[in-house]
Formats: sequence, C-alpha cells, structure tokens
Amino acid sequence: MQIDDYITLVRQDMLPFQWEALNDRVAEAEPSYSIANFRNAACKTGDYCGTIWQDSDMAKWLEAVGHSLACVWDEDLYRKAEQAVELIVAAQDEDGYINTYFTLKEPGERWHNVEQCHELYCAGHLIEAAVAYFLGTGRRKLLAALCRYADYIDSVFGPEEGKLHGYPGHEEIELALCKLYRVTGEKRYLKLAEYFIDIRGTEPNFFLEQRKARGFTTRWPDDFMPLSYFQAHKPVREQAEAVGHAVRAVYLYAGMADVAHYNRDEALIRACHALWNDVTTRQMYITGAVGSALKGEAFTVDYHLPNDRAYAETCAAVGLVFFARRMMELDAANSIYGDVMERTLYNSVLSSFGLEGRSFFYTNPQEAYHGVCGKPMGEGDPALSHVKVIRQKWYGCACCPPNAARLLASLQQYSVSFDEKRDVLRYQVFLPGEQTQEGAFGSIRFRTDTHYPWDGRIAVTVLACDLKPDVDFALRIPAWAKGIVTDTALPEGAVRVVEEGFFRVRCAFKPGDVILLTLPMTVRITRTHPAVRADAGMVALERGPLVYCLEQRDNPTQLYRLMLSKADMDTIQARKDDTFGGTVMLTGQAHAFQTPGDAGLYHGQAAVVGKTQFTAIPYFQWSNRGETDMQIWIREQF
Amino acid sequence: MQIDDYITLVRQDMLPFQWEALNDRVAEAEPSYSIANFRNAACKTGDYCGTIWQDSDMAKWLEAVGHSLACVWDEDLYRKAEQAVELIVAAQDEDGYINTYFTLKEPGERWHNVEQCHELYCAGHLIEAAVAYFLGTGRRKLLAALCRYADYIDSVFGPEEGKLHGYPGHEEIELALCKLYRVTGEKRYLKLAEYFIDIRGTEPNFFLEQRKARGFTTRWPDDFMPLSYFQAHKPVREQAEAVGHAVRAVYLYAGMADVAHYNRDEALIRACHALWNDVTTRQMYITGAVGSALKGEAFTVDYHLPNDRAYAETCAAVGLVFFARRMMELDAANSIYGDVMERTLYNSVLSSFGLEGRSFFYTNPQEAYHGVCGKPMGEGDPALSHVKVIRQKWYGCACCPPNAARLLASLQQYSVSFDEKRDVLRYQVFLPGEQTQEGAFGSIRFRTDTHYPWDGRIAVTVLACDLKPDVDFALRIPAWAKGIVTDTALPEGAVRVVEEGFFRVRCAFKPGDVILLTLPMTVRITRTHPAVRADAGMVALERGPLVYCLEQRDNPTQLYRLMLSKADMDTIQARKDDTFGGTVMLTGQAHAFQTPGDAGLYHGQAAVVGKTQFTAIPYFQWSNRGETDMQIWIREQF
Repeated sequence: MQIDDYITLVRQDMLPFQWEALNDRVAEAEPSYSIANFRNAACKTGDYCGTIWQDSDMAKWLEAVGHSLACVWDEDLYRKAEQAVELIVAAQDEDGYINTYFTLKEPGERWHNVEQCHELYCAGHLIEAAVAYFLGTGRRKLLAALCRYADYIDSVFGPEEGKLHGYPGHEEIELALCKLYRVTGEKRYLKLAEYFIDIRGTEPNFFLEQRKARGFTTRWPDDFMPLSYFQAHKPVREQAEAVGHAVRAVYLYAGMADVAHYNRDEALIRACHALWNDVTTRQMYITGAVGSALKGEAFTVDYHLPNDRAYAETCAAVGLVFFARRMMELDAANSIYGDVMERTLYNSVLSSFGLEGRSFFYTNPQEAYHGVCGKPMGEGDPALSHVKVIRQKWYGCACCPPNAARLLASLQQYSVSFDEKRDVLRYQVFLPGEQTQEGAFGSIRFRTDTHYPWDGRIAVTVLACDLKPDVDFALRIPAWAKGIVTDTALPEGAVRVVEEGFFRVRCAFKPGDVILLTLPMTVRITRTHPAVRADAGMVALERGPLVYCLEQRDNPTQLYRLMLSKADMDTIQARKDDTFGGTVMLTGQAHAFQTPGDAGLYHGQAAVVGKTQFTAIPYFQWSNRGETDMQIWIREQF
Repeated sequence: MQIDDYITLVRQDMLPFQWEALNDRVAEAEPSYSIANFRNAACKTGDYCGTIWQDSDMAKWLEAVGHSLACVWDEDLYRKAEQAVELIVAAQDEDGYINTYFTLKEPGERWHNVEQCHELYCAGHLIEAAVAYFLGTGRRKLLAALCRYADYIDSVFGPEEGKLHGYPGHEEIELALCKLYRVTGEKRYLKLAEYFIDIRGTEPNFFLEQRKARGFTTRWPDDFMPLSYFQAHKPVREQAEAVGHAVRAVYLYAGMADVAHYNRDEALIRACHALWNDVTTRQMYITGAVGSALKGEAFTVDYHLPNDRAYAETCAAVGLVFFARRMMELDAANSIYGDVMERTLYNSVLSSFGLEGRSFFYTNPQEAYHGVCGKPMGEGDPALSHVKVIRQKWYGCACCPPNAARLLASLQQYSVSFDEKRDVLRYQVFLPGEQTQEGAFGSIRFRTDTHYPWDGRIAVTVLACDLKPDVDFALRIPAWAKGIVTDTALPEGAVRVVEEGFFRVRCAFKPGDVILLTLPMTVRITRTHPAVRADAGMVALERGPLVYCLEQRDNPTQLYRLMLSKADMDTIQARKDDTFGGTVMLTGQAHAFQTPGDAGLYHGQAAVVGKTQFTAIPYFQWSNRGETDMQIWIREQF
C-alpha cells in the first residue's frame, strides 16, 4: 500500500465505518453518542452522553468528508454528510451558539469554566468542518451557521470591556478562525485568533481568575492541572519549550504560525521557530510522535523519550503535521518541515490505522511487550496499561481516528507549498496519482508516478500548466537522501537550480513534460543525540521515509537480546514481500547475548554471544498479525 | 558504619526523632497526627486527621521501642513509650475495641468495610507493639489491653453463625496473632490467625459481599481494586504467584508461614514455598526490594523488574524479611532464607534511611535520574514522580520509617535460628557485638568481632554457654561465597560438620572458645535470568552482601553511556574510604560510547567508543551527598 491507497481507504472504508460508529451502530465498539447528542440538542430534549467534547468527533468526521469530496465525489458520503449538517444547524441556538453538552445539560453555564469545558475547542472543530465542507461541496449552509457562531464568540471574547478576557482551555479555534478568515475574507476572525493567542498566559491569569470566581469547582476528579498543561504559564511569545498536553500545544503552535504568517509578525515567528526546534530536535520520537507522558498526555523534558511507556497520541502527531505545514509557509526555502511532516505521516499517522482501516491506535507504542502492556489493573504492568498492542475498534474518547482521517483526506493540501519570495512551487509530500494545485502561483495539474515509499523513483508528468511566469517547480529532497539524487531527467530546455533540500527546476512547463528523480533507498542506521538516554547505544533502521521495527513473530531471538555489530549492519538486505498488501522487509545477520536460565534470578555466570538472523518490518505496518512484541531500537554491539 | 551502628542509630536518633514526628513537632515534616488522634480518642472528642491507618504509625514506633529496650535500656525512650501506652489504653472502648478513626469519626461503622478500612491491620500492629513492649519491659498493661481487643475481634470474626466470615483488607493481624499466641500461650489467637488465612479468597467472596451489602460505597476515589490486590482472588493454599499490593502480600505470606509452622500444616507449607520461590526467584530486585508497580504498590508479573520506575516500597522489603525469617523455621537447613534476608536488609532496608537517621525513602529507586524523577506534575516525567532522589523528613502516610526502625531494633531476633530436626543453632545474620540467645536449644552468649560487611573475617567468641547436649553451632556461608571460606579456626577439640550453606561446628563449647571464618570479599559481576528484560545485557557489581551503584558525581561519563568489557571487569579494585562514615568503594576501567551532540536528534553518524574510569559506591549509601543520578546496572560490552 502507498499513501494514496490510504486516502482511498479513508474514503471507502474509514469514513463510512466512522459514520456507523458515530451513530452507535458498531457492535464491538464503545458507543460514540456524538450524533445522538446533536439529535437531542436539535429537539432541546433528551440526554447528553460521552465526554464534554463529544461534538468534535462528528465535526472531524464531517471535515474529513469535506476534504474527501474535494478530491473525489462520493454520493453516499455526501448524503451522510448532509444529514450531519442538518443536525448541526438544527442544534444551533438562536444566538448562534452550538454545543450539545451545554444546550442539553447546563444551558446557564456557558463560558463559566473555559479552562475545562472544551466549548471553544468544539467550536474550532465545527468551524474547520464548515470550511472544508464548503470547499468540498460549495454548500454554504454550514459555513453560514458557523460564521454566526464565530460572530457570537467574537461578541463574548475580546479586549473590550464587558467581554471575557480569556482563551480556550484546549487550543484549536485559533487555527480554525484563520481558516474561516481565509475562506470568508472576514478580518474579525483573524483578529479574534490573534487575540486568543496574545492574551494566553498573561497576568492576571484568566484560568486562575475563573477558578476563583466559580469557587474552585472542577469537572475532573484530579486536582487542577498546572498552567503549563494549557501552555498558559506565560505569554506565548515568551515560550521556547514545548510543555503540557501535547495536542493542545501543537494546535496552539499551528495557530500561532498561521497568525504570524498573516500578520507578518516577526516576534511571533521567532516564538514559532523556538517551539518548532524544541519539539522536533529535542522532544520527538523517531516515528515523529510527540508527547511522551501518559499523565497529562504531555511533553516532558528535553531529550526524555522513554520508549516503553511512550504516550505518543495519534492526535498529537496529526497536530505536528498541522504545525509543520504552517512552518513551511513561514520558512519556505527550508526542507526540514517537509522532512518532519513525512516522518510523522509515514510512521506515526499511518501506524494509527489497522490495514483494514477499521481499527485504531489512540496511543502509538514505540516499544511493546504484550505480556505486560495494555492489561487491566491486576494483570501486566499498570504503568503500561495505556500501551495497547492491538488496535481497537473505537474509543469512548474517539478524538484520534477521525483526526487522522481528516488529515489523510486533505493530504493534497499538504502536498505542495508556494515560496512567494523565491517564486518556487515546492512539491513537499509526494502523492502518487493526479493532483491539481492552484494558488498565487497560478495553477498546475500533474501526475506522480512512483512506488514511493517502497522505491525512490519519482516521475512527475505535467498534465496542464498555467503557472505564473518565472515560477520554478521543486521536489523536496529529504534530508535522509543527503542531497543524493540519481537517474534524473528534466524537460527539454529546463535547467536545475542549485538549492539545498530541493530538486528545483526552471522551465516553461507544458503538458507532457516530465521531471524524474530517484532518491537513494539504502537502509540507514540511525542513532540519537547523546542526551537521549532511552536510545543510547541503540540503533534504528530506516529506509526512505520509513522507520523499521522488529516484531517478535519474525525473529527467533528475543528482541531485547539482539545486537547489531558494524559487520552485521553491512549484511542488511531489503526484500519486497506481499505481506500487508505489499511491503519491503529488512533482513540481516545479528548477534544475541544469552545468560543461563537455570542459574537463578541473579548469578555470577557469564553471558554468551552468538550469531542469529533478524527481520524488520516497516513500523507503520506493525500489529497487523495479532499480538506480538515490538521494538524499534536495537542494541548496538560495540 | 556497620549494622550494629544502625541499631544504635535507631535507638539514639531515629526513635526520639520519630517520637517528635508522631507528636507533630518536626517543623519541616508533614504532620503525623498519630498521637493527637489517640489523645482525642481517649477523651472521645476532637478531630481525627491523617489516613485511616494512622494508628499503626504509633504502634510500629512503640514496637520498635520495645525491641530496643530488650537490648539496651534507655530511660528516656521508656518514659516516652509509657506515655504512648497510656494513650492507647485510654483510647480503648469498653468492649475492647481500639481504633481512633472509628471511635472519633464513625463509631457506628465498625467492620462495615473491612476491605478498605484497615481496622484489622491497625489491630495487628497494636498487638505486635504490645508483645514487643511486654518482652522488652515486662510491663503487662498494654498486653492485657490488646488481649482484650483480640478477644473482642475473636467474638466478631470466625466460622460460627452470627460472626463475620471475613478477613482483613490489609493483612498483618495474622502474624501478630501468632506472636500473641507465642507470648500468652492462648490457642484461640492461633486459631483466629488460621481462620483469617483459610477463609481468605474463598467463595462467596467476603469483600464482594460486603461491597454489595453497603451499596458499593467506597472510601477511595479510584474504582474498587481487583481481588488479587488483596490476595483474595482464590484460597491462599492455591496461590503460587505473588500478586497485588506487595506489603499486603508479604505480610500474609509471613502469617501463613507462622501458622504452617505451629500447625505443621504440610499443604500450607507447600503454598509458602511456592510463593517464596515466586517472590525471590522471579519478582525481586537485586537489592531485595519487591513490588515494582506504583499503581497498587504491587507485584506485576514474573521477571518484570523495570528499574526506572521501580516502586520497591521500604515496607515491602521489611515484610520480605519477616517472611524470610519464618521460612527459615520451616526449612531450617536451607541457607537461602538468610541470603535473601541479608540481601534485603543490607541493601533495601538500610538504603531507606539517610546516614543521619532522620530522613527516609518510602520508595527505593533502583535507578534515578534527578532531572526527570521525583518532580511535581508539569515538571520532569510524571511516570517517575514517585521516584524520589532525596530522602524526605517524614510522610503523611508514614508507614515505612517506623517499620524499618522496628526491624532494625529487633535484629537480634533475626540473627539466629534453631534447626530442631538436626539440633543446630544457626547464626544467620551476623551482628557485630554481644548477643544472648535463648530457646529450645538452651542459651548462649557470644560476641561477634567483625568488620562485616566491609571485611569477610568473622570471629565468634563464646562468652557463656548453656546449650543442650549435641547442639551444634553453625555460621551461614552466604551463597555468594560459593562455599569458599578461608582462614578458619575452631575451638580445641571441635570438628567441622560438612553441610551445604553453613560452617557447622560440633563442640562442647565453653567460654573463650572462638570460631573464626573468613568469607571471600571479592568483587562479583552479577547478571540476571535471561527473562529479565530490564537488566538484559547489563551487569551489577556486588561485594559481600552489598550491591553497588554508580552515582554521577563520582563518574566523569554519563552513567548510561558506560560499559564494562570483560577486561574492564578484571581491573576493578576495592578501596576503603572515609566517606559516609566509612565505606568500601569500587573503581576500575570502563568503556563509554558517544554519539555526536551536533548531528541532530536522529542522525546517521557512527558512535565512538573510548576508555574511561568508573567509581561505584554501596547502594545503601547512595543519595547522601545531594541530588545526583544513580544506576545499579551497567551495560556489558560484548
């Protein structure tokens, strides 16, 4: 399977399946209640069920449908989506407010506990859904409803006297308002996003004031979270370390980058760079996952990336892709954002789905021992109970499956970026098949022929071209290629412009022109920064954008006893295989150490080292053959 | 410092300090409330503060005083203890019941939630205190009060109709009732202990029945614990795996071994052996600590012994010593119980105290990185917040400090055991100084001259001897000595009887006789069973009964980058040092691997291996020089 197969899987399987889940019609899954809540809110009667942010699950699904319809029309999906739209619009209150929890359960309690109640978070997702659905279908009904809601929110929050000087407990609406601004041209939406970003973490602290005002009531059994959990411990422009809840953090950073971009706000751009660097050069797993801690689903501290208990939530990976996409706009000539986007997409995001598209990881294990992981209290290790070794059908808190779906469905929006300063249209994430891209650069329709990520050959054929004069076309050369491209071809009369990180072509493109380049798909031995204790003295195997892992079922030796010497590394072979609907496996010689099993728990007997073989599979394809142990990092034999 | 110095420290520093803590007079410590609660209960008025088991803190302290007074009279301690006795007796209800929580807060709620309310647990500790205080002082007042309480409990629990067919939520009273039986000769106490053990885990389950009867009210914010948490998932005779809360478990096993011993109950003896084997050959850290999981303070599964997040509660180590002492009675010719006792005592129990005797570890880290451990939410790694790198002054739940104190104060009771079957008095735990031992074997007074554990030379001089005819005297030869003893000497006319695990001497002992043996204090390289993933490919250093560790402050290279090759291991030297009031440090050559710090988080650059030096200190002396990183296990270079 290639990335476009996943996009098809989203349309054909995931979205119909998730619709059933949202309607509580999947027998083996936890009920969602999301549609039932909207139906009840529309009648202003009946129960509310699920978490307080349950509305966002339907919103993310609807957004994904909008993206999907923009690429490929699907009448069945469209009809389902129209039902959802009708429900949302019917659930809107007269003043524009949409939130099924407060409408049904506590109509008088709106905005009293912005820190914990996810009202602005759900609003953000509904706005994103409305924008995507409008762009995918041209239908304005939902967009109009969400503009009314955004107008209402704008009347509640803001610097003016009488308004709440507050900001969301869970960031999301910032980037959503920027999308709404882009599609409507209404500056007030951008201004409100800017306000939410600038007021965040200032003194007196809004959350602390609200806690006091409501007598310190809390919706959670735990104590109040520290302000850093919400990235509200200091003004965002002063933040240089990623802290707190990882999804909140990356959504905020994406919103910051949006606002910085539209306002050309240099101070905010600097803050975005600092946070980007912290996330991606000090707090990111090799799979592109972020947020190592279960408690608080949070970032911890620089270089602390424990593999065994990694939280690595799917939503945080999705949010990191959002952040990367926006950093690309701010720093257009740098290929690093595409590198991180690709790392996260091909490893963390894809691994969150089962091959059949109907099972999901909420957290993405970076190592898994099935005898101790993912067990209920009283079995296994309770510190690893969140580390599931088998994907689940659905979740009570189902933020992740529709989140990954909406990202995949919208992948064409991540595929290219336009570097206005240098007049370069940059092809960042290679998508097999045809795509049309339009923007300030003009428009271009092209087809990508490639077996990427299995093969490094990428051929781009221009199908139709109406680019503005002097706009170059560039293909990202991933950092792992170390600038090496082979077997290249350019259209007649084209020249290659030397530029780091990109294969940049200057040409008067016409239909039929082909740009070809081949990336080196050698197996790479990857090591970490010396401060990363969890991976110290270990190596990971990578090939192209894919991180590899060992599954116990393919290996005769317990994974934690395997070692690779330098000579072993030289024996590694890549081999095509039909497993998982197509894959490339790695095999090679390894060493293994062994201590005697009959000498007791602690003993003085020597360890013996012998030779063995190993097989590695792409990380994103793991756990598709039943329960087994999994490890990415392999001990290096020095 | 040697073990007898610790016993002196308990008497001179810990017990007076803990008395201040129990009286809430230690400024920097969390209040105990324990004495205030007794004072209020005596007047039947005022508040109750602290956990529901707060009474046990004072009971453990009083028990420790009893043990201490049995060895060395201390008028000041005695006067303090008399105040405690008066308070306890005054707090006793007319029917014999003693529990300050229920007396003050919920007098009508006795025994309604035996699973969660610790009534029988506190009763057990008060009984142990009364027995020890009687044996140490000859004073009967507290003993009489606790006999009344035990009689009352016997009227509440038992197989007869109208009684509760139940057992404690936290085991402890079983072993306490056996002590009370031993000192009073009253068989009803033994029978009640036996009842608590035999009814445990039978159907219908008592805890489940009580939950139902009280409408599933719970005292804890968490859900109900699984029955395995209380070792109540099946009858104890059918249990072969240590599960659930570790302190509960080892206290139960100790009580089982007591009852098995008194009743010569072969089926129960078999269960004790199975559980002993599981705990000590599959679930024990190298320091003798048990209970790896924070959540539930619990055992996990066989061979799962993560170092970084080890819970390893002090109380569980203390309880393992209790269990070992009783297994010694059941299986008298086997030296393994003394080995485990010594491992736990010299490493886990001693490490729980600061050198000054006034700071304490509740959990005992098996590895500690101060940048991520022991931090509040929002700093460091929340999965390691329980891993304190500095001992605290006191705890709100202060079960551990007085528990370790009572063990050390009673160490002479762990020093020898009598093997009735073979007529051998076995010297199991070497205690420098004089001791008198009396029992079925007669009596003997002897002095031990030794610098153990720093030095392997142990000289036992008989001071007075009234042993029964044909009773041999044997010194345990620890398993780590591999049967090698050198520089031995026997009294004139004595012969050594060949016996595995002991240096057994047959002699008509008379005052002035000296038995001398020298144990080989070489540095040992220890590895684990191959199923222990956490220590795979690692070595630990041991010398005599001491496990060693690395503190970062003594080592120029980050601990996790250190490696020991076989050649490095041959360079290790033991060196006497004055640090910590006397120690033996280990130094030697090591290797270290290094990856470049400027190549990014993930990179393709090679690791470089170089030579370095390392210094190790005894584990029990760690964290006495401020915050630093600590590691026991060192990577082996293959």
